[in-house]
Amino acid sequence: MIQDMPEPVEVLTFMTHLQDEICEGIESLDEDAKFVEDKWSRPEGGGGRTRAVSQGRVFEKGGVNFSDVHGKSLPPAATESRPDLGGAPFRAMGVSIVLHPENPFAPTSHANIRFFIAEPIGKDPIWWFGGGFDLTPYYGFKEDAIAWHSAAKQACDPFGTDLYPRFKKWCDEYFYLKHREETRGIGGLFFDDFSEQGFAHSFAFAKSVGSAYHKAYLPIVKRRHDHPYKSRHKDFQNYRRGRYVEFNLVYDRGTLFGLQSGGRTESILMSLPPTVTWTYDWHPEPESEEARLYEDFLGARDWLEDK
Amino acid sequence: MIQDMPEPVEVLTFMTHLQDEICEGIESLDEDAKFVEDKWSRPEGGGGRTRAVSQGRVFEKGGVNFSDVHGKSLPPAATESRPDLGGAPFRAMGVSIVLHPENPFAPTSHANIRFFIAEPIGKDPIWWFGGGFDLTPYYGFKEDAIAWHSAAKQACDPFGTDLYPRFKKWCDEYFYLKHREETRGIGGLFFDDFSEQGFAHSFAFAKSVGSAYHKAYLPIVKRRHDHPYKSRHKDFQNYRRGRYVEFNLVYDRGTLFGLQSGGRTESILMSLPPTVTWTYDWHPEPESEEARLYEDFLGARDWLEDK
Repeated sequence: MIQDMPEPVEVLTFMTHLQDEICEGIESLDEDAKFVEDKWSRPEGGGGRTRAVSQGRVFEKGGVNFSDVHGKSLPPAATESRPDLGGAPFRAMGVSIVLHPENPFAPTSHANIRFFIAEPIGKDPIWWFGGGFDLTPYYGFKEDAIAWHSAAKQACDPFGTDLYPRFKKWCDEYFYLKHREETRGIGGLFFDDFSEQGFAHSFAFAKSVGSAYHKAYLPIVKRRHDHPYKSRHKDFQNYRRGRYVEFNLVYDRGTLFGLQSGGRTESILMSLPPTVTWTYDWHPEPESEEARLYEDFLGARDWLEDK
Repeated sequence: MIQDMPEPVEVLTFMTHLQDEICEGIESLDEDAKFVEDKWSRPEGGGGRTRAVSQGRVFEKGGVNFSDVHGKSLPPAATESRPDLGGAPFRAMGVSIVLHPENPFAPTSHANIRFFIAEPIGKDPIWWFGGGFDLTPYYGFKEDAIAWHSAAKQACDPFGTDLYPRFKKWCDEYFYLKHREETRGIGGLFFDDFSEQGFAHSFAFAKSVGSAYHKAYLPIVKRRHDHPYKSRHKDFQNYRRGRYVEFNLVYDRGTLFGLQSGGRTESILMSLPPTVTWTYDWHPEPESEEARLYEDFLGARDWLEDK
């Protein structure tokens, strides 16, 4: 089937446009946000366009990254379901976003859309999409959680109503800190090794997810970024940000893939929060606002059950 | 040889005494240091005695841990050189210390002494010691680096003059952040899978290293903890502490072993600093005090060459 050939140039164009669109969305919400753009290339092949935001009024730190790298040997972290592709020549393209708002009542978010082509020697090339988005509140709002998951469902439904429940569940399972017995946040979507119904269909699905992310996230930040807060709330945000670091450095496949494949460290670790604290054996006061996060928001839950 | 039988009770006694001795040393240097002691046990077998220090005048955060755990299946992170022991029933005993001083001119230090017995089914038990100590300055002092490495050499030399160079090199290689192309600090000693010349000899060596640590470290902290500093120095300390987090969560075998074996998370992650910052693509000003750390202290170096 000729129409099923992958079109890397189309994917690249979509991803760079998405990067631009997300940056524009951030700038329109946060006049003070300073973007630093770094274009980089790497010796083994390919490169990227890193855009780092810092010290905004709304966003304390974050990044909107695009990269397109190729290499001689696919690192094992790149594909969970096809370990046989480890070691094959590859090309990996992706947009990756993490935004850490300044206000503890505004949630951190992450999104990623990635496209891989592996070319095992003597065999046909194999391609797949992966990605998704997830939300990490410090103080939870049910309204935000429902809006977030509704957007996730709407992005999936045109491609099959089984997709949202599958990828919502995968997200809950993936963004899980086993050593804490906690989800990273309230989840969203996660998919990988996705090539269902051919390239055109899979690409359209990846586009739908990628384009839904900022349209869901920025309105949530807009509602929360002026929420009054005290130092105690900031302390809790900084403490909870420690979980973000623990997840990204211990479990996250994208981070491990990047570090294993000799990626650009500053671009990979752009996901880390600006300020983080660790306090030995800290627990929230029972029935406090902080305890509510653990009780009502961390842990897999069907946010759309009432709808 | 009957005298070569391992003596776990002797090791346990040494380790718990060492824990007490180190805590006493800390208290005599830092009157305000508050120790919280948690005795814990774990469902699979064994437990520990965690002592966490926080908000001292000298030590901002840290821990002096003892644990003695057993399990049905040795995690792969436990032994690098004998992957065949992965999955065997095991007992692991260790003292582990990380201390983060408040003053940026006083270095962070880490020490660990561990003893493993693996009992592969149908085979003779296999035991070994591992451990060492290493120093992580934020602002380097040559005098401290020489004192630290002299203590390391003195702890090793009675057991063979080849040991210090071997284990100094291993330490430089082990505490290395590949993605940063930086050592974690100025090193010290690292050894693992050590059972040379039988149990009595190996245990005596492990004791020598364990007992040397605080006698080398506390005098360095005593010299530096009142060093005047400005917010810029604290900022740099918090930034560099990010490297400590990156190392421990991405590379450290002890941390990975603990998390993989279902260890007590709060005891394992006690090594993490109190406050940490990440700043995108930050670099020190050329020829600044901060640049000196990178130029003169990070990277393997023979500190005893002048002696």
